[in-house]
Amino acid sequence: MSVAKEFEAANEKYAASFTKGDLVLPPQRKVAVVACMDARLDTARALGLEEGDAHVIRNAGGRVTDALRSIVISQQLLGTREIVIVHHTDCGMLTFTDDVIRSKIKTELNQNADHIAFLPFPDLEQSVRDDIKLLRDSPLVLDVPITGYIYEVETGKIVKVE
Amino acid sequence: MSVAKEFEAANEKYAASFTKGDLVLPPQRKVAVVACMDARLDTARALGLEEGDAHVIRNAGGRVTDALRSIVISQQLLGTREIVIVHHTDCGMLTFTDDVIRSKIKTELNQNADHIAFLPFPDLEQSVRDDIKLLRDSPLVLDVPITGYIYEVETGKIVKVE
Repeated sequence: MSVAKEFEAANEKYAASFTKGDLVLPPQRKVAVVACMDARLDTARALGLEEGDAHVIRNAGGRVTDALRSIVISQQLLGTREIVIVHHTDCGMLTFTDDVIRSKIKTELNQNADHIAFLPFPDLEQSVRDDIKLLRDSPLVLDVPITGYIYEVETGKIVKVE
Repeated sequence: MSVAKEFEAANEKYAASFTKGDLVLPPQRKVAVVACMDARLDTARALGLEEGDAHVIRNAGGRVTDALRSIVISQQLLGTREIVIVHHTDCGMLTFTDDVIRSKIKTELNQNADHIAFLPFPDLEQSVRDDIKLLRDSPLVLDVPITGYIYEVETGKIVKVE
């Protein structure tokens, strides 16, 4: 069975007891979360989010470069006024470089990916600091509170970086 | 109180009963989900995801253009072999055009955002079909099962598009 079919079965149960059909479009808690796509991080459970609370933007590494379009939409059209960044321990982004993945793509797919910045990082704390700075320096991002955390996949805890 | 502080308080409770500290990096169910950042969509609850199951990539609209870097990393380095796309009813992306948001940014931030494609769409089903096609046509994406759904924020149900 494809995972998609399993999702359909799980969703039937979710929908059967669904009671949140009257939520409005703008996030109630006026916050946008930028987090890694990592499978071990459940942003809602780990941060106490209920349906309707927050925009959740996720990508490989939780990098803000990839999230800028979404953050601008979140702030300009949907009223969020705070940003929370969540990177995490044992992140895949700590394990490779652009050269490594470009070379793998060349070998396995026979494609050139030199035009893609895959945004890996060698230092976890620094990656959070860099992303906060990128947002603070961007003229397209409002001057709002930005907090960065490292989620520990070993303990389930978030540890504040800045 | 900032929302970040509230997240810290909620996370203390989550971590206090956390039992999943030995999960491995690659997603157990070998699937990458690409979904909208919308606050009303809790991808884990709506699809039956547990910590460790799946990569979750989210952005404004759940557009694959923004997700390509993450999908390539997911497939090439972390072994996912299926993709599920989730857009949803009452999406903010149905309510504006590039011209509208660029003009707002010009007026409110005095910045030029003509270089950013904000990827809004006028037709929800078509947006899912377009994103599936984009992935199928990309030479950087493996030939894997791709399924696209519309999540109904009114009912909690996912409805298959393709």
